Order: sequence, then C-alpha cells, then structure tokens
Amino acid sequence: MNFKLESTDPKSKARTGTLTTAHGEIKTPIFMPVGTAGTVKGLHQHELKNDVKAQIILGNTYHLYLRPGIETLEKAGGLHKFMNWDMPILTDSGGYQVYSLSGTRKINENGVKFQSHIDGSSHLFTPEYAMDIQRSIGADLIMAFDECTPYPCEYNYARRSMHMTHRWLKRCVDRFDSTTPLYGYDQTLLPIIQGSVYKDLRKESAETIASFDLPANAIGGLSVGEPDEDLYEMTDLVCDYLPKEKPRYLMGVGTPINLLECIALGIDMFDCVLPTRNARHGTIYTQNGIMNVKNLKWKDDFTCLDENGTSYVDSTYSKSYVRHLFTVNEALGKQITSIHNLAFYLWLVGEARTQIEAGTFTDWKNKMVVQLAQKL
Amino acid sequence: MNFKLESTDPKSKARTGTLTTAHGEIKTPIFMPVGTAGTVKGLHQHELKNDVKAQIILGNTYHLYLRPGIETLEKAGGLHKFMNWDMPILTDSGGYQVYSLSGTRKINENGVKFQSHIDGSSHLFTPEYAMDIQRSIGADLIMAFDECTPYPCEYNYARRSMHMTHRWLKRCVDRFDSTTPLYGYDQTLLPIIQGSVYKDLRKESAETIASFDLPANAIGGLSVGEPDEDLYEMTDLVCDYLPKEKPRYLMGVGTPINLLECIALGIDMFDCVLPTRNARHGTIYTQNGIMNVKNLKWKDDFTCLDENGTSYVDSTYSKSYVRHLFTVNEALGKQITSIHNLAFYLWLVGEARTQIEAGTFTDWKNKMVVQLAQKL
Repeated sequence: MNFKLESTDPKSKARTGTLTTAHGEIKTPIFMPVGTAGTVKGLHQHELKNDVKAQIILGNTYHLYLRPGIETLEKAGGLHKFMNWDMPILTDSGGYQVYSLSGTRKINENGVKFQSHIDGSSHLFTPEYAMDIQRSIGADLIMAFDECTPYPCEYNYARRSMHMTHRWLKRCVDRFDSTTPLYGYDQTLLPIIQGSVYKDLRKESAETIASFDLPANAIGGLSVGEPDEDLYEMTDLVCDYLPKEKPRYLMGVGTPINLLECIALGIDMFDCVLPTRNARHGTIYTQNGIMNVKNLKWKDDFTCLDENGTSYVDSTYSKSYVRHLFTVNEALGKQITSIHNLAFYLWLVGEARTQIEAGTFTDWKNKMVVQLAQKL
Repeated sequence: MNFKLESTDPKSKARTGTLTTAHGEIKTPIFMPVGTAGTVKGLHQHELKNDVKAQIILGNTYHLYLRPGIETLEKAGGLHKFMNWDMPILTDSGGYQVYSLSGTRKINENGVKFQSHIDGSSHLFTPEYAMDIQRSIGADLIMAFDECTPYPCEYNYARRSMHMTHRWLKRCVDRFDSTTPLYGYDQTLLPIIQGSVYKDLRKESAETIASFDLPANAIGGLSVGEPDEDLYEMTDLVCDYLPKEKPRYLMGVGTPINLLECIALGIDMFDCVLPTRNARHGTIYTQNGIMNVKNLKWKDDFTCLDENGTSYVDSTYSKSYVRHLFTVNEALGKQITSIHNLAFYLWLVGEARTQIEAGTFTDWKNKMVVQLAQKL
C-alpha cells in the first residue's frame, strides 16, 4: 500500500491524497460502503461500481468467518473472487461484532471467547487468529484485533482495555509479519487507537499506535453513542499525534455532517452502516437535508427522487413511486434508497476532495453542515 | 393494437407473430413478468428491459387499486409514468386477486363485494368499474372482469359462473366502448374464456368469447391446481375455436414445460409469478433442469451460476456465492435469482420463436421438456 498526500486545506486540517492498493487507487477522503457478509445489502456489484462509484468496500470478519467460513473463502481464492469484486476491500478484525452481536463473550489477555449469534457455537478470536482469518479473506487493508470499548466506559476499564489493545497490536504485527498473503497480492495491517473519550488515554494511544510505524492508522471506539462533541474532540486530538503522511481511518463514522466535520479534522477514510441501514428504513440524505420517503407529503409528488442526486435512481424514480414501494413493502424501494444514499455519500466525499483541492473546503463545509441538517 | 401472424410450425399449432401496441412491439410467443404493485419484485426497470429483455409486463388491478390507488395513478398520468416503464403493460381485471386474497367476498350478478386484505375496508368491483379502473391505470392491454372458478369446481357452478362471465363481458365491452383512454394512447380489451375443466363448457365459452370479435382472446380459470393433462386438454380444445389471426393469452401459466407445451397448442402470451416467486425461494430454472441454489452441494462450487444462462448474473456470480447469499438471507440472492429466472423465461420463449421460424420447434420442444424436468 502506498499513500500520497496531495493537497491540504488552508483553513482546516482537511487533506486529499491517493491510496494505492493491489486492487486499485482510492482517492481520499473516501467513504467505504459496508458489505457485511460479502454483499452491500441490496446492491449488485456493478451498481456499487458504476452507480454508487464506490472505490473500496468493507467486509466484516466476524460475519464472513461464520458464513461462508474461512474454508470456503480460501477455496474461492479470497473474498474478491468469492463476491466478484475486483476493487479494494478492507476488513475489520471481527472484534466489534464479537462485542455487539454475540450474546456471551469472555475477554481476557489471550483473546475473546464468544458464542455465534447464529447457532450458539463457541469460538475463540485471538490477535493471531484475527490475522490468520484476514489472510484467508484476503482484503487489501486489514485491521488489528482490538477491544472496542462501549460508551459510557469507566476510566479505569478504558485504560486497562487500551493497554491490552496495544499489547494485542504487538501480537497482530508479529503474526502479520510472520505470515504471507495467500493470493499473491499485498495486504496492509492498520492499527487501531482506543481510549474512549478520555484525552490522556487517546493521546497515549495515538502516540503508541504511531510508534508502530505502520503504513496507515485507524481510530476506533468512537461513534458508539458518545455526543458529537466528544467524537470531534477525540478525533481532533488524535490526528495531531498521527503522522501527516499516512492515511487516517475513522471507524464506524457516521452521518454526512460527521464526515464533513471529521474531514476538516484530518480524516481520510470512513465507513458506516448508516446510509444503507437508514435507506432500508426510508431515510435518505440529500444536499438539502434529510428526507423520510415514507411521509404522506410525498404521496402525489411526482418530481424525481432527488433533483441534485448524482445516481440514475434520483432522476429515474419519483418521490411518489418510491413512497409507494415502501408503503407496499416492495424490495425495490430499499434498493433505490440504498443506491441513492451510498451515491450521495460518495458524492459528498468526492465533492469535499474537490473543495479541498480548490482551497474552498472550509466555507463549503460550513454551508453544507447547515443544509444537511434540514428536514425535508 | 395490431397482431400479425408470421409463421406456423408444421408439426404443431405453434406460431409466431408481432403484436404492436402504443408502447412498442411484442414478438410472440412471449412471457410477461408479473409486476404486481407497479414493480417486478426486486428488479429495477432497466434490469427488466436490458437484462431480462422483457417486452411487456403485467400489473395487478386489485393491488394497484388498493395502493397507490386510482387517484394517485391518474395524477401520475397512468402506471407507465408512475413506475417509469415506457414499454407495453397488461393489467388483469382484479378478479383473480379478489377471489384469492380477500378474506370475505360476495359474488352476485352485479359484481363482487370484497374486503381489502390490507385494512379490511369494503369495496365493490363491477364489470363497469373494472373497466374504469383499468382506464385509470392505463395499460395497453386490459382484461375483462370475470369469475375465475377454483379447482375442483362442481359442473353446475362452473356453468352458471361461465354464463355470468359472458354477461359481464358484454357489460365490460359496453363500458369500454363508451369511454376513452385517459392518456392519449389506445387500450385494447381482452375477453376471458372460462368453463373450468369441462369440455362442453370450454367449447361454449370459446365460441361465445370469439363471437365478440375483440382483437385478442384470453383463457382463464386454468393453472389453478388442475393436473397438467387438463391444462393441456382445455388449452388445445379452446384454441381450435379461437380465430387464428388473433393473439391468444393463457393466463397464469406456468412452468417452463407448461410454456413449451402450450406454445405447441397455439398460445402466444403467458404470465406467471412462478419464475419470480420460486427465485425468491432459491429455485432456478435452467436449460438442463431445476436447481435449488440453497443445496449444500453448491457450497464450494465456484463455477458460474448457469453456464448456459443469457443474463450477466449467470456469468458474474458463482453457485457458491449465490448459495451463501441465501444462507445468510441477503437480498442480493433473491435479486440475482429473480433476474436469472425471468431472463431464462424470456430466453425460452424467444428460442421457441426461433425454432418455430426455423420449422424445428416440435423436435426441439420434445427434447427440451425432458431436459427441463431434470433436477440439478
């Protein structure tokens, strides 16, 4: 993996760059659609590529490990081939889902013992095994195994957990360095900063993680329920301790406004289920604010879904028609809004990039965060 | 509407033709994907057109009448504009769903009183109102209001019902003739033959319906649970009483084998929910037989979904991947199999057309019905 920092905004810490992987280039800042189980829900791969204009997608190690399982993924030649996606992929380490989905899990220094949310079977994830699994999945960018603390989190727990995450990182790096990719192309390991919403912990974690000198860095443990001010404060603080020349990935963030504010703080990469999950519930994001397509007010509104939208669904389908599809619970409704929201997110980060390059990012961002907060 | 009979098979009653509507030409024999509530489940309109290669789709009057409702459809300028589909549409009369979906319905000479399956509200469909609703929907081809008798059906009930359907047809024609299309293009009314599985009734109904001298004719009350032999015997019998130069539509049929056998009996048009409904349950049709994509045997089969398939999904996705999508209940699985099955149905009728034109239909059909019956 290679990252080239290209331009910086004069009035903020926003920057643009190009991240090069074995499966192609990624222009940052970028948003990564979440493809939980080897599919971004409701979208064909060509729609992701051509309509959404995704440059990289994310897969969930926990889900892929359980189904289809490592054996099948290895036989397929990795996730790219399994799902027929030839562009970059990032996988998380499985930790987050172990904590959020598994009913019972026991964390100790060795790793996490958990029961599958599907059949209750017992499994053990260790830092080493998380590397092995991600070798089998074969994503271009893979994540260190960490503990993602919840919010709120008591200080002493957050500190102990963070230190364990740091020790786990060492074990991840050792395993990563002593193994080779299975499918003939390079993989890159990203370490994860933790520390909950405590400034001193975040500083310590950022310095520790930076000292590993890996090619990219990630910030975890945010967007877990804390107020936006905490999200921004922690992100701002952490970015100051991370090397400028390496890409920064803020995990699990967020709303369109979150993206713009965090781009201003120096973040290059994002992922979040929000655009697709909300799409499936009829909430879409537009340049002029948030719209609930199920509202009665759209019943006889035959104007196109989003006149400023960049995807064909925005001009092809009317508000009235999409509302109807949700009213009658037809799958096409979710398919349309999912394409819309992802295309909007990709437009948003792409436009942020253009504005940074033009030196106009901050003014544009300040205008956009007002518009984006409106309710349509 | 105009129909031009083009070629006939020397060894069967199969024929090809071109049906011209205000929204374009339809090459027969043809299969019409069912778009119940203004959407063929799980497919974008451009997928229907470009991937499935549908030439005409079917809408359900009962569903569209309840939601989005006639008022919205009229404001939209008809169903074509509402769903953004500029090719031909046929709507049924609503009768079939009134009988099959509505919990309580009372049939008398005037019409059918029924309760909505959605909210229990009371509604009355009469032959006249079924015409008015279909004027509002604005399909190119619209169906007379009939009673579709169930199977089995006692002879006297079938006879009385058939006579009422004939009287209703007269009322449909009168209403149709005394009203004009709402959206500036012609609509064509098709009468429906009934008579259950009784030869004398089918003969009487076919003769009566033919005597109305409408531009096309339809056969109803079949594919309601009767054995295939009855389906074929009734279809065969009825076709002999229908004018050769007019298109014949066999409603609600059927399996790929049913299609081929009924094409051989002189049918030009079909519709059925089978390809989409079965697709959503993981059953796909191929030239070599029926395949349940959920079967364990496909777990590690990374060959493409259908090597003989004509749609891009057949070469893009592997059996293993599609099985995985069904295992984890991901929407994309159903989207893929729905495109596959509809593309297969459209390929099947298109190939039948080619074989009829080449004079080789019967031999090909006899070979195909063996292949299609296999289990993969």
